[in-house]
Amino acid sequence: MHLSSVFHILGLLTMFLGVTMLAPIPFSLYYGDADWVPILIAALTTFAAGFAGFRFHEFRKDLRAKEGFAVVTFGWIIMSLFGSLPFLFSGAIPSLTDAFFETMSGFTTTGATILQDIEGLPHGVLFWRAMTHWIGGMGIIVLSLAILPFLGVGGMELFKAEVPGPTADKLTPRITETAKILWSVYVAITAIHAVLLMLGGMTLFEALCHAFATMATGGYSTLNASVGGFGSSYINYVIIFFMILAGTNFTLHYRFARGEWDVYFRNKEFRFYMGMIGLAALIICSNIFFNSEIGFWQALEDTLFQVVSIITTTGYGTADYEKWPYVSQIIIFFLMFAGGCAGSTSGGIKIIRLYVLIKFILDEILHLLHPHAVTRVRIGKTAIERGVVTNILGFFSLFILIYTLGVIAMAALGMDLLSAFGAVAATLGNIGPGLGSVGPTDNYAHVHELGKWVLSLLMLMGRLELFTVVILFSPSFWHK
Amino acid sequence: MHLSSVFHILGLLTMFLGVTMLAPIPFSLYYGDADWVPILIAALTTFAAGFAGFRFHEFRKDLRAKEGFAVVTFGWIIMSLFGSLPFLFSGAIPSLTDAFFETMSGFTTTGATILQDIEGLPHGVLFWRAMTHWIGGMGIIVLSLAILPFLGVGGMELFKAEVPGPTADKLTPRITETAKILWSVYVAITAIHAVLLMLGGMTLFEALCHAFATMATGGYSTLNASVGGFGSSYINYVIIFFMILAGTNFTLHYRFARGEWDVYFRNKEFRFYMGMIGLAALIICSNIFFNSEIGFWQALEDTLFQVVSIITTTGYGTADYEKWPYVSQIIIFFLMFAGGCAGSTSGGIKIIRLYVLIKFILDEILHLLHPHAVTRVRIGKTAIERGVVTNILGFFSLFILIYTLGVIAMAALGMDLLSAFGAVAATLGNIGPGLGSVGPTDNYAHVHELGKWVLSLLMLMGRLELFTVVILFSPSFWHK
Repeated sequence: MHLSSVFHILGLLTMFLGVTMLAPIPFSLYYGDADWVPILIAALTTFAAGFAGFRFHEFRKDLRAKEGFAVVTFGWIIMSLFGSLPFLFSGAIPSLTDAFFETMSGFTTTGATILQDIEGLPHGVLFWRAMTHWIGGMGIIVLSLAILPFLGVGGMELFKAEVPGPTADKLTPRITETAKILWSVYVAITAIHAVLLMLGGMTLFEALCHAFATMATGGYSTLNASVGGFGSSYINYVIIFFMILAGTNFTLHYRFARGEWDVYFRNKEFRFYMGMIGLAALIICSNIFFNSEIGFWQALEDTLFQVVSIITTTGYGTADYEKWPYVSQIIIFFLMFAGGCAGSTSGGIKIIRLYVLIKFILDEILHLLHPHAVTRVRIGKTAIERGVVTNILGFFSLFILIYTLGVIAMAALGMDLLSAFGAVAATLGNIGPGLGSVGPTDNYAHVHELGKWVLSLLMLMGRLELFTVVILFSPSFWHK
Repeated sequence: MHLSSVFHILGLLTMFLGVTMLAPIPFSLYYGDADWVPILIAALTTFAAGFAGFRFHEFRKDLRAKEGFAVVTFGWIIMSLFGSLPFLFSGAIPSLTDAFFETMSGFTTTGATILQDIEGLPHGVLFWRAMTHWIGGMGIIVLSLAILPFLGVGGMELFKAEVPGPTADKLTPRITETAKILWSVYVAITAIHAVLLMLGGMTLFEALCHAFATMATGGYSTLNASVGGFGSSYINYVIIFFMILAGTNFTLHYRFARGEWDVYFRNKEFRFYMGMIGLAALIICSNIFFNSEIGFWQALEDTLFQVVSIITTTGYGTADYEKWPYVSQIIIFFLMFAGGCAGSTSGGIKIIRLYVLIKFILDEILHLLHPHAVTRVRIGKTAIERGVVTNILGFFSLFILIYTLGVIAMAALGMDLLSAFGAVAATLGNIGPGLGSVGPTDNYAHVHELGKWVLSLLMLMGRLELFTVVILFSPSFWHK
């Protein structure tokens, strides 16, 4: 392990983080809030710390897989530590545990909050909170499309960006190029989204905050009542549309922009994703419509918003799904595990993995009937390598195992069963709101101090495709 | 598909079932109950129906895998249909749905009951109820050690009886021999268990009923308060011991009886099984002891009984685990998925599969660090074939998938989330009591009519290692 190279890169990342912290200051000044001073101090502190790490650690060229895993995991942790400074310095969140939880929740694009009165916060801090989502989302797109596929994590080979990218086992050379392309797509869609929100009556501040949170599938809002607080069907439908985009493989957006108009509907994963949204919405919408006084169009809007919000792991709220009939609640719960498409900013298991999993089970059944036939799991006409299928099965098993341990840990810290099931699903899947005491109308403020650290770890593991984090616990990672 | 051969064998099975129905009659007569008449009629009806199926369908020698799956699945269904006749004819359970549920729960050694007043039933019917467990257990031992391994179901190859057994793809020839050996072990342990229970003050009737239910890891008791109703620590510890035996691979018992005294502790799966029981008991016992007024010895007894009862998927009750602190409840819940050793009468995923699953995840992590190293999942020093690992992963994925669909179905039928989580875990895992409205002090009487059929299907699928049942839903099973 070349710790020196790792510190060098982390230093660079932290310097970059310090610079981005300047962005909220104009909003703070414009609204006449006082929080620009602590934010400025936080930015300078972060930049200086990053500079020290960068300057005093040498970079060696031969970055291997091990260093790659270390940079990614420690990168997210260090960003969350320094990223919590604006909350701490401004006094918006006085406790380190809470501030770290909130920032980790931001950078992992989870959106689980410990804040009880969001509207009471100054604008600079609120803007920074939304920015943590957006920056986290940028990280994830590059990570999932241009870095992890080359490290062989959980079948991520399948999700390679079909744009110019790095080759073989050298990580650094062409990442920059891929990143530039994907980020311009990300920035462009965010800008369009913000403009459309302003047309619906949001201020520039609100529009940017929500565009950041939507495109990162994060879920932080500027209102206590989340998106529901705007009470606008136009805004709801605009956000539904952009959540769907954010939950789609960003390579597809790039190819669409280059003129491949049918690229979405030629993509198996995208079709399966839309099919799941459609099926879940159909069941829940009829379930609500026939079991309550809500009119059809309202039921449709609520359903579409919540289904898309949960499956894309955004976690915005407009309706309280805990008031829905049981079957609707349970479908929402299981959607938390699904997640959107690979190569999007969404968390969870990811549609393509579920697709491969189901194909694999069908293949196993066929195999029982024809033991001597050689079968292969296919996506469309492409046969998937056995090794990739195995990686996906490994990811799925590890997801269930970590989920189980997470629920036991939260119960041990005094959480009731339903809330523990929900809290762990909502953090490991990077969604935000869960069930019970951490449901859509509640928050994570009341969770046990230690529980907040456990949930932070779950957010990190879920965000980094599990193996990237878990590997650091392996003794042989640290050998030699 | 040679339906003729299938019907022939099913006819034979049904005739056998009719004969076994005579066994409860002496108890009915001894206790002066009137239920021996309807039971006799049920026995004659069953025998006659079986004889018709046997006589009018020809047997063809070349039984293939397909026919094997059909015989097993339809065998359990037909046994449950005819097995419910004593309940129906005696009026003990007047509804067909309820009677079928109770009988399927018996033959699958689940032990979930719809009865609200067990003690009010006549002795013949109660004895038959316990017998369904015992007969089901006999079926399972032979199925899991001598039939399924040769059909390639869910990694069952690993669980082959290490006693003389059938070879290659011919099913029939030596099954009889293996069955005889395993059944004599089963009968012998049951007899010893019954004698020890009588020494604790049980009548012959009670002792036999409980010995049947313990050895099959079923869980039907003759008391409303289950085993707790006897209020005897001696009986509790005897049952704990025999539940552990029932949850152990029966091949080990056979080898032990032949003089291999260290066979248990040389077996990885058995050690892992005992380790899990020990660890769960340690956590729960301290958790209860430090959080209630219960004395240490009582806490230990309650804990050991419940942990063993759940992990072996027996489902007897002495203490109400829903009154325990959350972490103890959640451990009990997750133990429902574990199940005992392969080749035992217990249900669930099975210890050996979990062991392979964990080894596989560790192997995947190592593989990320050393992508070019060739690694193999091992049990002790034996490397497991890739194909078997894949089968186990397939089983695990299918288990989770069916669990998910089961919970959605139960919620759609109006069950609240926690009860649905519990009911599906308790039936798919063949345990019996679940959580919430189907907890250890409740029963399944209140479940939606359709829900009882769904749960019956889940019991059947769980008992027959999923694939055996699921394969019948595959169109290509019925082709040609």
